[in-house]
Amino acid sequence: MLPGVARWKPDAVDRLQAAAFALFAEQGFERTTVAEIAERAGLTSRTFFNHFADKREVLFGPVSETQQEIVTREIAACPAGLPPLDAVVYGLQAAGDTLFEPRRAAAARRQEIIDANPELQERELRKRAALTDAAAAALATRGTDPAAALLTARAGMLVQQTAMQRWTQSAENRPLRDFLADALLSLRTIAAQTTDQEDVTLP
Amino acid sequence: MLPGVARWKPDAVDRLQAAAFALFAEQGFERTTVAEIAERAGLTSRTFFNHFADKREVLFGPVSETQQEIVTREIAACPAGLPPLDAVVYGLQAAGDTLFEPRRAAAARRQEIIDANPELQERELRKRAALTDAAAAALATRGTDPAAALLTARAGMLVQQTAMQRWTQSAENRPLRDFLADALLSLRTIAAQTTDQEDVTLP
Repeated sequence: MLPGVARWKPDAVDRLQAAAFALFAEQGFERTTVAEIAERAGLTSRTFFNHFADKREVLFGPVSETQQEIVTREIAACPAGLPPLDAVVYGLQAAGDTLFEPRRAAAARRQEIIDANPELQERELRKRAALTDAAAAALATRGTDPAAALLTARAGMLVQQTAMQRWTQSAENRPLRDFLADALLSLRTIAAQTTDQEDVTLP
Repeated sequence: MLPGVARWKPDAVDRLQAAAFALFAEQGFERTTVAEIAERAGLTSRTFFNHFADKREVLFGPVSETQQEIVTREIAACPAGLPPLDAVVYGLQAAGDTLFEPRRAAAARRQEIIDANPELQERELRKRAALTDAAAAALATRGTDPAAALLTARAGMLVQQTAMQRWTQSAENRPLRDFLADALLSLRTIAAQTTDQEDVTLP
């Protein structure tokens, strides 16, 4: 263990996450222990538990909390004239720039680990529900009718989910915020189709 | 036990569900046993296990499977010109007419039980994800581009979730299919708002 490095907390978190993701991919989530994660990261189990309650939290803990903080803060900071759905996507773009953009490979690996484990999938869905409620509350504070705020926040999560999948699976090198803008446009196009129009192919 | 009644399976299922919902509401999901559910329904535990794998399945089992069957069948049967999102809502309306409309009180009670138990909430979210995938597959078979089909199916689930909540909580006596139509209109309105427009209050 390198004490100087371990005291620099963000780096410890990143190293523990990288080690955990690598081990989950190599030998599966279930089989991986906290001791193995700490060892791979060159840290102690005690340091692990300073940052995460358990190995599941490596996938869900700090990042999700921070995402919620950024999204709600950015929704609150949006210009008053910006429509609610744009405000949510604006918040998601800001969170994406900070949290996901620098680590596309890790985001893709995280998704693969979650997709392979039903318990983790359910947890992922719960976390998304918490983010939805937080975004809806932020919209309501900004003046959106509460019922519309909840529906808008849910529509925003749909945009986020779609954009994250397309971004992590894409062969292109475009930033996540572009995929968020594209997914918003896709949703707008889908919603705007009425019985008088042809069935169109979306971007 | 009344053997003649027990052999009529749909009635046994309905009686077991009603008994289970009442017991879950009275004493909580965790504390209720299969033996108690069967006893309350005037049936045996063996009959219970003929219809449900465990007590959790009373909330999720047969109904969800049937919902998926109806939704996918109705999407496939839609006129070719109907836009994909309308096709999904059309399927959800058909399933709602059959499965939920005759039992609004039970649907409301079921939602309360699920909302009170994180494990059940996660299961509910998983079931919704399965229905989403089935609806997306039905749209793709109907000719919608697969990426657009998934986003459309997710938008449909958002409409369903919103409509079910509003319907079970409503003091009015309007049918679920009206709430589905309203929620679709709300989503259309939210998606159509652009930066040039005022922030409007939705229906």
